[in-house]
Amino acid sequence: MRKVFVTGIGSTPFGRHPDADIQALAIRAADAAIRETGIDRKQVGALYLGNFVAGPLVGQEVLAGLVADGLGLGQIPCTKVEGACASGGIAFRHAALAIATGLCDVALAVGVEKMTRADTPTVTAALNCAMDNRADGVSGLTFPGLFGLVWKLHAARYGTTRSDVSSVVRKNKANGLRNPLAQMAADIDDDAIHNSALICDPLRLFDCCPVSDGAAAVLLVSEELARECGVPAIEVAASVQTRGSARIAGQPDLCSFDATVAAARKAFEIAGHGPSDVDFIELHDCFSIAEIVDSEDLGVVPRGEGAIWAREGRTRIDGDMPINPSGGLLAKGHPVGATGIGQIYESVLQLRGDHPNQVRGARIALTHNLGGTGVACSVNILRRADA
Amino acid sequence: MRKVFVTGIGSTPFGRHPDADIQALAIRAADAAIRETGIDRKQVGALYLGNFVAGPLVGQEVLAGLVADGLGLGQIPCTKVEGACASGGIAFRHAALAIATGLCDVALAVGVEKMTRADTPTVTAALNCAMDNRADGVSGLTFPGLFGLVWKLHAARYGTTRSDVSSVVRKNKANGLRNPLAQMAADIDDDAIHNSALICDPLRLFDCCPVSDGAAAVLLVSEELARECGVPAIEVAASVQTRGSARIAGQPDLCSFDATVAAARKAFEIAGHGPSDVDFIELHDCFSIAEIVDSEDLGVVPRGEGAIWAREGRTRIDGDMPINPSGGLLAKGHPVGATGIGQIYESVLQLRGDHPNQVRGARIALTHNLGGTGVACSVNILRRADA
Repeated sequence: MRKVFVTGIGSTPFGRHPDADIQALAIRAADAAIRETGIDRKQVGALYLGNFVAGPLVGQEVLAGLVADGLGLGQIPCTKVEGACASGGIAFRHAALAIATGLCDVALAVGVEKMTRADTPTVTAALNCAMDNRADGVSGLTFPGLFGLVWKLHAARYGTTRSDVSSVVRKNKANGLRNPLAQMAADIDDDAIHNSALICDPLRLFDCCPVSDGAAAVLLVSEELARECGVPAIEVAASVQTRGSARIAGQPDLCSFDATVAAARKAFEIAGHGPSDVDFIELHDCFSIAEIVDSEDLGVVPRGEGAIWAREGRTRIDGDMPINPSGGLLAKGHPVGATGIGQIYESVLQLRGDHPNQVRGARIALTHNLGGTGVACSVNILRRADA
Repeated sequence: MRKVFVTGIGSTPFGRHPDADIQALAIRAADAAIRETGIDRKQVGALYLGNFVAGPLVGQEVLAGLVADGLGLGQIPCTKVEGACASGGIAFRHAALAIATGLCDVALAVGVEKMTRADTPTVTAALNCAMDNRADGVSGLTFPGLFGLVWKLHAARYGTTRSDVSSVVRKNKANGLRNPLAQMAADIDDDAIHNSALICDPLRLFDCCPVSDGAAAVLLVSEELARECGVPAIEVAASVQTRGSARIAGQPDLCSFDATVAAARKAFEIAGHGPSDVDFIELHDCFSIAEIVDSEDLGVVPRGEGAIWAREGRTRIDGDMPINPSGGLLAKGHPVGATGIGQIYESVLQLRGDHPNQVRGARIALTHNLGGTGVACSVNILRRADA
């Protein structure tokens, strides 16, 4: 396998884009990623686009080809990939693989979703496409329901409190305040969180990521081309994709997503790093409790101590293991197909030293993108050339 | 790149499956493909699933993970890929790449679609997700409209007649009579075709493939494992994916799909074969006129002579270049995501010498799967070990 580097990055703000259709959002992000590098767009040899529900929500498929058309790329393979909320991470891995395996020297990974035009029942039904609707959907379960169960079990087993979980919300909402791409950043206190609308006990409104439009894109290149680009290249030290169960009853333990555990272990092995080498993490906090569980699953926080680390501020930007300096899904937003690529975008900015919410001396980053009931997971480790 | 072989194959009949949900169809086909080989399913290292509109039509995504769950596979990367009607061919290529590049030794490619439960306007709207809805969909255009235009242009340029095109319909409907998986085979004459309902001038009902449910799957393995399987292994001599324009106005010529031309050229180059080496073809006859255009685009029939070859019977099973011995999409059916894998299934049966509609002495096959307005194309060349 050849070394792979991320050079150009681009992103729209996450939030509401009433005047831009889904193609336009993706093209805007991808065009920015290409332009940043000075690479001729005709050199792009493959395009992977992560998207989850453009079919049900905007009636548009073949987005990979459409976006390539709009960008003026060649007659290259253009593929939409889908793995629910991990669609973006899966697109990134496939673009990285295209270079690692020598299929091409330049590949584009794009993620996009457009969700805010639809009403809440329509969006909820679309998001439920990510669970096994024969097994779980028919019971009336939705994703807040799943993560409500996770929270209750975590609380029963480890004593996790409302206040612990609120620490995650406060941190991510505050981190988002410095991120110009963030949709719902805020300076809020525990009372505001606790008094926000009850969504699915014990989850309240501020425990849930917003519904978002947005796109993100990154350009990946071979080692040789990385040297020629006008921007600092960040190495893809590992890009791993795993699966877990598509049904809640198929999960061995609701306090853990085994797809995350497996992906992180393999990513560390491939990268030759351990959890303590990582300088910060962008992980999949679709709900506040998810950040606590994910931090344990990734092995960066001891099992059962996710709530303690959150409470003690050890996951803040200046803490032992900064988590979601971007604001995460909770504050930055969650345009589903774009989220995984957005995490790479944020991490590359950090590793360049250019992030508005910079983690000091960041050299190694981990990103984590989880789909559905843990059915699909993507974990990436990125590093600076000097790491 | 390592050599890649197809061993196990499985398929449901194409047609109406009112009692089977989409997961069940895919699992049935994939399970059959695995069982045929004697390979332990825990050896499967990657799953690619081709599907187009399960989101809008059945409200179910994450099908790749769901199917892996149902099959009892490991914590492997499971990816749904989408490129409209070429989704199946794209899934096949990615499974082949996983082995060719050494990522794993066993990979599963599955294609599935469930369409017959929805009413006609719903299916038409879902199929229109395959065009650029800003440019073409807004005009009221549908796919019969596009292929009606193609026919009119082909007729004006080359003198193609209703009777020429009917030769394609008669041949494919008759070929399908011997295919136990076919949905709409028939022994029909020119009058029956000409008197069938007008869909979009000049296309009539029998010029259009049916709406279908169905699934197909193939198991791909490395050269070493191919020797150990209990079934004859067929080599993947080339697997190529290209893109064309997603908008009609972006096509250089409506009498040709440039994605097909590019894919075929590259596939022949990689395989080291020429068009005259191919013993038969399974191509994307979504409409009767498409077979004529595709046969020219693939380079197996001289430009402008597709109608002549059809009229003269040169594309029959005993002709110079047998096309769609399976019955093609016109007779076998078109469960969109399954179609490309179904073509591989049919071709492998032929190359094993086991097809109910056997092409005598078939050693080299070509499959062709085209999506949308030619936005995505997959061309594969398969060969026997002695070819």
